[in-house]
Amino acid sequence: MLSKAKVRFIKQLQVKKYRLAEQSFVVQGNKVVKETLESDFGVKILLATESFLNALSPKLSARAGEVIIVNEQELAAVGSVETNNAALAVVSMATPKPLSLGGWMIALDDIRDPGNLGTIIRTADWYGVSQIVASPETTDFYNPKVISATMGSFLRVRMHYTPMTEFLKKSAAPVYGALLKGENVHTKKFDKQGILVIGNESRGISGDVEKLITHRITIPKLGEAESLNASVATAVILDNIFRYS
Amino acid sequence: MLSKAKVRFIKQLQVKKYRLAEQSFVVQGNKVVKETLESDFGVKILLATESFLNALSPKLSARAGEVIIVNEQELAAVGSVETNNAALAVVSMATPKPLSLGGWMIALDDIRDPGNLGTIIRTADWYGVSQIVASPETTDFYNPKVISATMGSFLRVRMHYTPMTEFLKKSAAPVYGALLKGENVHTKKFDKQGILVIGNESRGISGDVEKLITHRITIPKLGEAESLNASVATAVILDNIFRYS
Repeated sequence: MLSKAKVRFIKQLQVKKYRLAEQSFVVQGNKVVKETLESDFGVKILLATESFLNALSPKLSARAGEVIIVNEQELAAVGSVETNNAALAVVSMATPKPLSLGGWMIALDDIRDPGNLGTIIRTADWYGVSQIVASPETTDFYNPKVISATMGSFLRVRMHYTPMTEFLKKSAAPVYGALLKGENVHTKKFDKQGILVIGNESRGISGDVEKLITHRITIPKLGEAESLNASVATAVILDNIFRYS
Repeated sequence: MLSKAKVRFIKQLQVKKYRLAEQSFVVQGNKVVKETLESDFGVKILLATESFLNALSPKLSARAGEVIIVNEQELAAVGSVETNNAALAVVSMATPKPLSLGGWMIALDDIRDPGNLGTIIRTADWYGVSQIVASPETTDFYNPKVISATMGSFLRVRMHYTPMTEFLKKSAAPVYGALLKGENVHTKKFDKQGILVIGNESRGISGDVEKLITHRITIPKLGEAESLNASVATAVILDNIFRYS
């Protein structure tokens, strides 16, 4: 039985301050809730339809602190995604791990659109980049739209929010940024490790951060668009970094 | 003076059947409304704040059939984007041109998300691809969320909605599709012309269309994500097609 208090509790987790207070976030949908139960994330509450539960191994459903059977109407009412006829989980935030150095890292300088952030996390996961550093103004990793757009990659990619200029100043790795008049990404030889800085959707990389870019790179433009979407630019650059690797 | 009837008329254009009946769509925001006035698209109505109009050359404001001065509250009430403190235009749909053959073309097999479609149009414009063919189920080009996500590229890229298998059967160009177990996009030699098929966000390329793919290609995966976002995959493949071109 899904109480009104529980509905209110879950809906509040759409707001960052409640997520922080509860150290919890919401995961929605058949596939990704199952993947979350299979991961080492702690699942506090599992709302599930009977058919979802029937298809789930008892070992996995036992991973949830509390299991509540719901119907699709209840799921739709408590959730924030358009279609979810299976399950919703309230999940404990991951314990922050210290950043490990070496390899490639993405640094987000104020990405605001949750869809872009989720897509960047998903793309990072595709190319095997598991650490993202982000300015404090960057959209919250645990925002439900971000979690949804990651398509499960939130389980594998860790984000660290930290003032960007301080982080870059301390870093020994080369710092790459997509800027005008940079080296062509198609001919650039990339290092084995580095930090790829992606700027804000409308303003691009901020002035203070730009000063810390050691390698300016540019995606050649053959047509007329003024710019590329932030998640698209991230993907194209990662694809160039990891060619033949 | 913005009448209630005009507000209703503009709001209705958020719905495809009204757009079709009126052969009109809505463009919102300072930059893109200005670009639309500079283009050869017909502008029926221009809603603009005084400061937008003051900064606009009289030649451009004369391009609108009707100019209505509004304040920011009125703009917010009639529009569908989050922030617009400048202008909104009701624009005539472009007259369809016949597809011209040669070069590269994108074929969308049932792309549903307006943000993805808009981003694909923007990316196509960046790489100089100006023609997109789409299955009839693909989201409408003139959907306000699509127009917004194109960041002005709707002015330069034309979309043609047509049954996909019939179109591909008639085409003489090689047909590329991102599929499992295809040739690595990083080493593939691409032709000077071709059709790049992009599949639906959840189901991928449909079975009937897959049979007509002549070149299966694959973006190498180095990490764990199950797939890439449709607009991201489009961008990565276009970037590989147009390297060194």
